Amino acid sequence: MSTTGTETEVSPELLEEGRRAYALDREHVFHSWVAQGSFDPMVVTRAEGSHVWDGEGRRLIDFSSQMVNTNIGHQHPRVVEAIQEQARTLCTIAPAHVNPARSEAARLIAELAPGDLNHVFFTNAGADAVEHAIRMARLHTGRRKVLSAYRSYHGGTELAVNVTGDPRRFANDVGDAGVARFMPAYPYRSYFHSSSPGEETERALRHLEDTILLEGPDTLAALILESIPGTAGIYVPPPGYMAGVRALTRKYGIVYIADEVMAGFGRSGRWFSVDHWDVEPDLMTFAKGVTSGYVPLGGVAISEAIYETFRERPYPGGLTYSGHPLACATAVATIGAMRDEGMVEHAAWLGENVFGPGLAEIAERHRSVGETRGLGCFWAVELVKNRETREPLAPYGGSSSAMGEVVGAVKAGGVLPFANYNRIHVAPPLNISEEVARRGLEILDAALEVADRHAD
Amino acid sequence: MSTTGTETEVSPELLEEGRRAYALDREHVFHSWVAQGSFDPMVVTRAEGSHVWDGEGRRLIDFSSQMVNTNIGHQHPRVVEAIQEQARTLCTIAPAHVNPARSEAARLIAELAPGDLNHVFFTNAGADAVEHAIRMARLHTGRRKVLSAYRSYHGGTELAVNVTGDPRRFANDVGDAGVARFMPAYPYRSYFHSSSPGEETERALRHLEDTILLEGPDTLAALILESIPGTAGIYVPPPGYMAGVRALTRKYGIVYIADEVMAGFGRSGRWFSVDHWDVEPDLMTFAKGVTSGYVPLGGVAISEAIYETFRERPYPGGLTYSGHPLACATAVATIGAMRDEGMVEHAAWLGENVFGPGLAEIAERHRSVGETRGLGCFWAVELVKNRETREPLAPYGGSSSAMGEVVGAVKAGGVLPFANYNRIHVAPPLNISEEVARRGLEILDAALEVADRHAD
Repeated sequence: MSTTGTETEVSPELLEEGRRAYALDREHVFHSWVAQGSFDPMVVTRAEGSHVWDGEGRRLIDFSSQMVNTNIGHQHPRVVEAIQEQARTLCTIAPAHVNPARSEAARLIAELAPGDLNHVFFTNAGADAVEHAIRMARLHTGRRKVLSAYRSYHGGTELAVNVTGDPRRFANDVGDAGVARFMPAYPYRSYFHSSSPGEETERALRHLEDTILLEGPDTLAALILESIPGTAGIYVPPPGYMAGVRALTRKYGIVYIADEVMAGFGRSGRWFSVDHWDVEPDLMTFAKGVTSGYVPLGGVAISEAIYETFRERPYPGGLTYSGHPLACATAVATIGAMRDEGMVEHAAWLGENVFGPGLAEIAERHRSVGETRGLGCFWAVELVKNRETREPLAPYGGSSSAMGEVVGAVKAGGVLPFANYNRIHVAPPLNISEEVARRGLEILDAALEVADRHAD
Repeated sequence: MSTTGTETEVSPELLEEGRRAYALDREHVFHSWVAQGSFDPMVVTRAEGSHVWDGEGRRLIDFSSQMVNTNIGHQHPRVVEAIQEQARTLCTIAPAHVNPARSEAARLIAELAPGDLNHVFFTNAGADAVEHAIRMARLHTGRRKVLSAYRSYHGGTELAVNVTGDPRRFANDVGDAGVARFMPAYPYRSYFHSSSPGEETERALRHLEDTILLEGPDTLAALILESIPGTAGIYVPPPGYMAGVRALTRKYGIVYIADEVMAGFGRSGRWFSVDHWDVEPDLMTFAKGVTSGYVPLGGVAISEAIYETFRERPYPGGLTYSGHPLACATAVATIGAMRDEGMVEHAAWLGENVFGPGLAEIAERHRSVGETRGLGCFWAVELVKNRETREPLAPYGGSSSAMGEVVGAVKAGGVLPFANYNRIHVAPPLNISEEVARRGLEILDAALEVADRHAD
């Protein structure tokens, strides 16, 4: 398949359907995170594998995996067939009943999950997985407060957005959610004046323990942490950090919730990102990649100790679609396709051989690139006005005309990026071909000349 | 189709699959609302129309619509085909892009929704719809507190369960969610010592206004109310109550959120239950019936005034699957099937001609029946130990061996009921045939002899 878009790949009917959809969208659809009046959404007329086609029928390489969820790419035939087959068999059943698709999905996830996370509570997506994980931790410990990192994202519902350490929290944060926050390990923008990854780990762990002691260990139910913080910057924890977090939570009896909603299901080249550091959490939230978003699904993988808490005591939580059969059958097919096609291994290979070296070269060529970092198919390009000061090309929590131009240039070149503040993320499907991945990097490379014009 | 189950309707392979699924379920699936160790879930091997088949291959009439969501019954061919077709076309796309299925679903819902609810924010289900509706109300008014009714259910996530006025809230309620509560209009168990529906309306509205005044009108962002409280008892508001609630919220500038998650999409014989009283809310939450749960979907229908608040100001909320194409295509097909087959009208007809009179006769024959009430395909049978004292057959928030026996007898007779505390709910698919509906009532009638043994 050629990597340049042509008008002929989308039918005139599809283009016309897209135009109608645009008009209706502007009239009736209320969109996430934006001002409705000035929002000008892109039409998508078609999607397949690692490509999407826009409202003009132009083909774009999907370096976003949408919301970093289509880990198996768009419209994987095996998973589409599984959805069609389960739809024919049984779409839905109440969560209280036993359903084969749900049982098998739970078995597979328990098999893949680290440690003794042998039980699965299914939710609709990541936000409610986070909400329920926190509830389990609170009831398990009898404590209330949750420790979470600044520069993190944990979801959009009220509790999930309040444990989020991202500016999107601000409008919803009146300080009553029982959350205490700590500074994360983030070598490129160290909060601890560190000058090496080793020093960052040491100081970040010291800061975390100080925070625990000053908050009061016995007041803390849980610590929630993205194993690799995603939207907040794909800043991979420095060596030793995650093991240190696990040790501190164990030392103080705090439930450790690994948030793998974005970082899990192969995204970073391991089934779960905690696997890079052999860390075994008490609870693990997942969503996105578990079904590649083909049907919404999320969940919490639960350790034996926490399961024990709810063996004789009712768990006070639930939802209509917990373990939805269509969603669970999709998870089973998705995991099967990922395994049989070696997608996780391919993602790791791409990280080591294509994205890592390719982005390092890009960083060398562009003075606007402060740092590139990542693992597997999960990379960030941090754009700066000045490499010495590291001043970001857009402020934390905001946008800038410079970033707008860069994102525009990337899209004009033929790549759909995932952009956040001053960063361009490279998060394509795990099964993107080497050829398309390299072509996407070339387009990014060319577009960053626009960024260089805004950098000293 | 005969209404008695036979072993031959489920293949030996399906029965064996059910047994395997049961074992895996007990090992790996963490269930909603229950103690995991003692939970003994029913296996469902098959479902079609208004019937489900259990782990022994017995056919049951589905008087639960599962979680009161399969409004079009199980496996409606037109909707199954629409899921298969959309799966073939495009399963998912990010919420920021325009998608024809999403646009069309929003258009249809805006068309059906009362008043000027012309904009739709899609969520995954009911709980997050409630969370986002409250967020919109808070930001629209600049106020924080939410008024909600006792004896209500609004969802399982943290904020949603905290506005819930049901004992399932207790374990999660530390009083910090910004919720003030009022007593609902509930003639059978009046909190206002009323002796007629008219008096109940008058006193309940007086109580609501007193509560508003005593809480401080300027502190109240929203009032949330199920248009017919569902799990909490299907207690239909007495004449004049809903109009009075609308008038009070308008008088004090409080956003009125109609929760139609269970009561909407035809359940009570109108598209939305507020339509019975010609009430036009500011926000309306929906889920369940919008897709019959075939693919999870929920949302908030938004008035022009609240839309205006977010025209130039970003809405600080969102989710990965907002307006999920597969879910939205399912909504479009579901609404189409409901319209073309006159399901809402059929539900109204059944309520007036089958369930209303049939349950009234049952109430006459059984001393254990305190009251039957409802509309359309949405009915409650309230069981009591004594008709004079109205003492419930199980305590509020609890169970009893008597209720366990009754539910067991109903199931043994061949009906899958929806039971809550001392109530049996009759909430079958809207397109249940008259014959099957009457057969289900006969089975219920016979089973209530068990209840009579526990009543004076």
